[in-house]
Amino acid sequence: MNVSTSHTAHKVNAATAFDHPEFRNHEQIVFGHEPVTGLKTIIAIHDTRLGPAAGGCRMWRYACNADALTDALRLSRGMTYKNALAGLDLGGGKAVIIADPSTDKTEALLEAFGTQVDNLSGRYLTAEDVGISSADMDVVGRRTTYALGTSRTGLGDPSPYTALGVFEGIKAAMRYRLQKDDPTGLIVSVQGLGNVGFAVIRYLHKAGAKLVVSDINTASVERAVESFGAKSIVPTRAHEVDADIFCPCALGAGLNSVTIPEIRAKIVAGAANNQLATDEDGERLRRAGILYAPDYAINAGGIISIALAGPRDEDTLVREKTVAIGDTLTRIFERADAEDRPTQVVADELAEERLAAAPLSR
Amino acid sequence: MNVSTSHTAHKVNAATAFDHPEFRNHEQIVFGHEPVTGLKTIIAIHDTRLGPAAGGCRMWRYACNADALTDALRLSRGMTYKNALAGLDLGGGKAVIIADPSTDKTEALLEAFGTQVDNLSGRYLTAEDVGISSADMDVVGRRTTYALGTSRTGLGDPSPYTALGVFEGIKAAMRYRLQKDDPTGLIVSVQGLGNVGFAVIRYLHKAGAKLVVSDINTASVERAVESFGAKSIVPTRAHEVDADIFCPCALGAGLNSVTIPEIRAKIVAGAANNQLATDEDGERLRRAGILYAPDYAINAGGIISIALAGPRDEDTLVREKTVAIGDTLTRIFERADAEDRPTQVVADELAEERLAAAPLSR
Repeated sequence: MNVSTSHTAHKVNAATAFDHPEFRNHEQIVFGHEPVTGLKTIIAIHDTRLGPAAGGCRMWRYACNADALTDALRLSRGMTYKNALAGLDLGGGKAVIIADPSTDKTEALLEAFGTQVDNLSGRYLTAEDVGISSADMDVVGRRTTYALGTSRTGLGDPSPYTALGVFEGIKAAMRYRLQKDDPTGLIVSVQGLGNVGFAVIRYLHKAGAKLVVSDINTASVERAVESFGAKSIVPTRAHEVDADIFCPCALGAGLNSVTIPEIRAKIVAGAANNQLATDEDGERLRRAGILYAPDYAINAGGIISIALAGPRDEDTLVREKTVAIGDTLTRIFERADAEDRPTQVVADELAEERLAAAPLSR
Repeated sequence: MNVSTSHTAHKVNAATAFDHPEFRNHEQIVFGHEPVTGLKTIIAIHDTRLGPAAGGCRMWRYACNADALTDALRLSRGMTYKNALAGLDLGGGKAVIIADPSTDKTEALLEAFGTQVDNLSGRYLTAEDVGISSADMDVVGRRTTYALGTSRTGLGDPSPYTALGVFEGIKAAMRYRLQKDDPTGLIVSVQGLGNVGFAVIRYLHKAGAKLVVSDINTASVERAVESFGAKSIVPTRAHEVDADIFCPCALGAGLNSVTIPEIRAKIVAGAANNQLATDEDGERLRRAGILYAPDYAINAGGIISIALAGPRDEDTLVREKTVAIGDTLTRIFERADAEDRPTQVVADELAEERLAAAPLSR
């Protein structure tokens, strides 16, 4: 509608989201702002070929907005792979709210975020993540039907399902690597006894495994020792335990050039995110003869429970799809062995194959 | 859904859209990408308090993505003010497609842009702009109902309505400044004879004004000389003509510290965008005793025709609202005089008053 116009844009020293090293073919990146509450959110939609982009909303006191963008872009792409590999008809997305959850989190702020989600009309489905609880999702859900994992619609805390998936993944790795159908007598070193880790040791104990546990929270460790006869060790040495299986359920980047040579287990299978410090660490594990269950494959039970929750707490489908994590891992292990490649590379490839078979865009 | 996670975002040397100097409380900034066509578009939604954000889509071969973002942010905010002042129930937005219209414009690219617009579900209404024609909007409109000014829904070329608004604005300025109801015998120097400029001189000639015209396109000048008995002058001297009214309808930034002292007309009223080189030039015109019709107030006929087109080429409402541009200008002139302030400052203020009276958000 401008009939005669001058091109007056002047240069600013600001690159755009398109220029970000983690841009990597994102379909849509939304910077959302609401002046009254001061909401600043970045919603990254990486890929919707398989369905609407699903991924949690993280609230974090980022050092700068650029850090928030980096986080959103990396996590969003990660969700594309995780959802594809979990067999969900969902794409990958992620939201970050730039705010301190301990001081800035108000109902008005969460509602304003809900409006931003709603403005995307279902292309992005949000859920809880670091700094955002299921109760917060209820507040977000006042403004949008595209909030998953609310107390009204979800199965509540997703960690029991994450733990179930990890347990199934451990069994699949055990069958594949140790040719055992029964965990009885196997030693498992579990690093981290948060909601997921503790649920995992409960499964393992019931199945007859021997436990070595570690956590900076000594109360959890004491509970594990009393309830399950577990032995304890300091968290920093959990990977060195002479166990059959090392199960990291705490911080990421625990598998690196320092720790891998110290691992005595034949299997690494746990719930932690981003376990490999670098891509090379997958190859390092393979050369060391350690079978690694790719983190985003084995810990998908949480997103499965959030995505497939039926009405009235029905979890049949969720359990089915979570148990199937074991089959997915077996396929990954087989192809990795057949082609002498690291398991996490094969996992990426399986996800990419599913994406490539989908229609080009929606 | 990440139960235990490490915060691994590393710093990159990239500021975000939130940090851009032209961010100025935008509600939403969308970076859209489509891998097959290579579409890169930025859709900036500045303010939706008055209604969905409306503003054209510009296709331009930007030197860098940051230039495109700067352009989108500045134009989007401009549309908030323009639509508010024109009395439209529309907010302000703008889209840019980063591509060369002469070599990159394909139907697939335009369709992919249409999908991006459609993904915003009507929060942004697109239309033609520099590099994008009404025919292009038809292609965009295959993917979204939120494309205005298509051949199916619109009144076609908006420039006749822009010209009508400019003519009404000239008459309002003439009545206010020269106390004349009839343009007969007044001398108007029209700079730029594009679609709008030529339609303006047709109105002026019919009303009895004497014309001095200028354009780099000599054919247009010759037509004006033959058809309307206009005199001609080189475009760079159009502002120096000893006319009653100077009517810039070409490039922007024509009113600056060099040209203003050379202007002999008592009124500046024309269709060009961004006529003032700097904010101070408004005050400079006021001190020189020259009545300036703020560009975005007087050239709103185009967006009015695009926004309010009725079915089957009905333009009654469009004409009514376009003619009302004269009344709006009169209000601006009166308040500016009463308060000894530049007219464009008063125009901004009137727009802001309308925005402030609207509900906080939609």
